[in-house]
Amino acid sequence: MELLNLDSLREQLIRQEETIIFAMIERAQFKQNQAVYQNGSIQITDHSGSFLDYLLQKTEAIHATVRRYTSPDEHPFFENLPDPVLPSIEYPQLIKPNNININHLISDIYINEIIPIICSEGDDGNYGSSATGDVSCLQAISKRIHYGKFIAECKFQEKPDLYQRLIQERNDDGIMDALTNKNVELNLLNRVKIKTATYGRDTGMNNESMSYKIKPETIATIYETWLIPLTKEVEIRYLLNRSEFSD
Amino acid sequence: MELLNLDSLREQLIRQEETIIFAMIERAQFKQNQAVYQNGSIQITDHSGSFLDYLLQKTEAIHATVRRYTSPDEHPFFENLPDPVLPSIEYPQLIKPNNININHLISDIYINEIIPIICSEGDDGNYGSSATGDVSCLQAISKRIHYGKFIAECKFQEKPDLYQRLIQERNDDGIMDALTNKNVELNLLNRVKIKTATYGRDTGMNNESMSYKIKPETIATIYETWLIPLTKEVEIRYLLNRSEFSD
Repeated sequence: MELLNLDSLREQLIRQEETIIFAMIERAQFKQNQAVYQNGSIQITDHSGSFLDYLLQKTEAIHATVRRYTSPDEHPFFENLPDPVLPSIEYPQLIKPNNININHLISDIYINEIIPIICSEGDDGNYGSSATGDVSCLQAISKRIHYGKFIAECKFQEKPDLYQRLIQERNDDGIMDALTNKNVELNLLNRVKIKTATYGRDTGMNNESMSYKIKPETIATIYETWLIPLTKEVEIRYLLNRSEFSD
Repeated sequence: MELLNLDSLREQLIRQEETIIFAMIERAQFKQNQAVYQNGSIQITDHSGSFLDYLLQKTEAIHATVRRYTSPDEHPFFENLPDPVLPSIEYPQLIKPNNININHLISDIYINEIIPIICSEGDDGNYGSSATGDVSCLQAISKRIHYGKFIAECKFQEKPDLYQRLIQERNDDGIMDALTNKNVELNLLNRVKIKTATYGRDTGMNNESMSYKIKPETIATIYETWLIPLTKEVEIRYLLNRSEFSD
């Protein structure tokens, strides 16, 4: 396996913050539109799931044909997607091949926890635009959280003896402690708050009355409450099963 | 037909600026990747067009099934898309039904003029991410430009005698003059520059060294050179043929 560099992984995560914040600001312009998430609320021929399921699955089917999910940093929400129509590509092996995918958890949290805090209550009928926004949000969040695999492998490589011992002891708390860098997390939350304040500001010509499309602390709270913990969840699952994954 | 309100149309266009700027900033993180736009550069089974054509056509096919193109403010780039799987919806008739669609022109300008100024030269291999970004940019730009139909109808309703005379005379220059509000355009360019400076700023923790993901004047230039003139092109086409469109 090739060696990973923690600084360059962090650069990636920092760049992904923009994608996540932009996607959430775009989604936040529409109301919650709960009908999008309820099975059968919007009647679709030959489809029994929710409207979002329909759009997400169809989108993933196309992206699968252009090889999206052969990349080790991409994870589909649906199974049984079509084969790529592009010739296959050789990715550098930076992590151990594995089948960790917590997208079912991510989509539950997104629909039940995140949507209610970024969108105002109610139904404005913009189902297509809302669900298209949801697909962008879910893809960006899923990519960020599953980056935990790269972070975990990188941290393992830095201190193999420590992690090997903790893994052998199945010491979840010890692993969590070793993975956690409070300083990095505080910097991240602060940075996300500044970015959301910057990107989420309503920039009219009148700069006196400041208003926000989305409150600066909202996305920082989402990171703190869900995105960071779920990233660590992926890190721990990866480390605990690392020895079982083939090289 | 229901009456249109110019202020609320302008609100829509102002909100769409964010979508356009966010989409361009997302696309700008990858290189030009010209292979995405060249027929046959990326070999796709059973497809002879470009990689972008493939992704855009497949995306439009899904969006068509969820009724995107039955909305009078949405225009597909491809023909022969599948029928909606959702029951049809009754939109308020705000403009005369018409078949104006200048997306072929928009996609030419996007690929040949806009991509070279928002992305740096070269090929970084991120074809999937680039083309996904292109789809978002093209959809946002197309929506903005075809909003010209609503603007034109609204301006016609405000001064029906003036426009009817100019249309009868086939006086293109006179129509262009009547449609143009220099003050509104200057405000727009100024506002887009401020927004791009705000959203496109690299917001690291170090605020001393300012850098931009995309230069503030770049997107204003794109508006000035292409988006505003193409919107007017749609306005003029709509007005010149207005009497031929059935109510």
